[in-house]
Amino acid sequence: MTASGGDGTDRSVDPRVVRTHNDVLRAALQVLIDEGWESVTRPRVARVAGYSKTTVYAHWPTRASLIVDAFTRLAEVPHHTPTGDLRTDLIKEMITLRSTMVEHRLDRALAVLVDHTASVPELVGVRDKLVADGERIVRKLLEPVLRGAELEAATLMLCGAVLHAALMHGQPPGDDVIESIVDLTLGRLGREQPAAP
Amino acid sequence: MTASGGDGTDRSVDPRVVRTHNDVLRAALQVLIDEGWESVTRPRVARVAGYSKTTVYAHWPTRASLIVDAFTRLAEVPHHTPTGDLRTDLIKEMITLRSTMVEHRLDRALAVLVDHTASVPELVGVRDKLVADGERIVRKLLEPVLRGAELEAATLMLCGAVLHAALMHGQPPGDDVIESIVDLTLGRLGREQPAAP
Repeated sequence: MTASGGDGTDRSVDPRVVRTHNDVLRAALQVLIDEGWESVTRPRVARVAGYSKTTVYAHWPTRASLIVDAFTRLAEVPHHTPTGDLRTDLIKEMITLRSTMVEHRLDRALAVLVDHTASVPELVGVRDKLVADGERIVRKLLEPVLRGAELEAATLMLCGAVLHAALMHGQPPGDDVIESIVDLTLGRLGREQPAAP
Repeated sequence: MTASGGDGTDRSVDPRVVRTHNDVLRAALQVLIDEGWESVTRPRVARVAGYSKTTVYAHWPTRASLIVDAFTRLAEVPHHTPTGDLRTDLIKEMITLRSTMVEHRLDRALAVLVDHTASVPELVGVRDKLVADGERIVRKLLEPVLRGAELEAATLMLCGAVLHAALMHGQPPGDDVIESIVDLTLGRLGREQPAAP
């Protein structure tokens, strides 16, 4: 864990500043997920976090800077640690991604993010960072076996399937569907099929 | 083309009513895509459509009813007409879906929709209808060759890949990536691989 803020400032000099920073950003994400974009104002976030408005205004000079920092925190999503078996690792990474959608309400945060990227240009960089981090393990796992358009296609299919189910179907895919997604993606690589039940 | 409104009312009795209905809903979608959710109010849409506020209020008793009808229009997206060759048909349907994202700004409308489904319960049914229509041809093409979890997985992967690229990468996939998406999905079905370049 690093004590640097999302803006690159070294806050390790004062642990109270680090704690304030973390508390406020956690509250900002909570307000964003529970109440939506319009509610993420500095006074509202200060109240939810239990800090004074003055403190929040001192750390974040604009509403946009607070929102950008809150989304940047989202990029620290958990990942599965690869074990070496490609099929198992992809399935476990998809399940970890699904858990983040459900438990951390990543689906809700992404919905708010993609809606407002059109009107808040600062969010483009945040979205790109979040996507790069979200896809990182999938790409790393696939790089030894796929390349070029196929690598891009497989990454979009794996990550997109979970995103599409969560955002557009309103529920993430079940275990059997995740296994099928990975097996269809790996099908051409000549891997053994799992035994029929 | 039918003269029935999205709410099931038969408006065939008066073509002027049909025209007003169409003009206003087209304007509502335009405002939604260009200016975002907050701007879709009946006075703003009336001004953009060139009708009086009174006319718009008479057709849509609430702001939500206007928004729901506007999204419902989106479900009439164009589709590729299947020719019988599975690989070609899937690629053409994916390209049609991509064109709709780009030219009709379906990506932008979907971003607004998924963001507000959490707070406007009436939008859940609209989203479900839109998704069912969007996936209809893909499912129909895949049904003869896949079933159960595999059919669900392949549908999520194909539609999700285009959605993920458009919403999260900020640009839809290129032709080569779309071909790879379809080839990876069909790989296990023992189809011939395209010749190497």
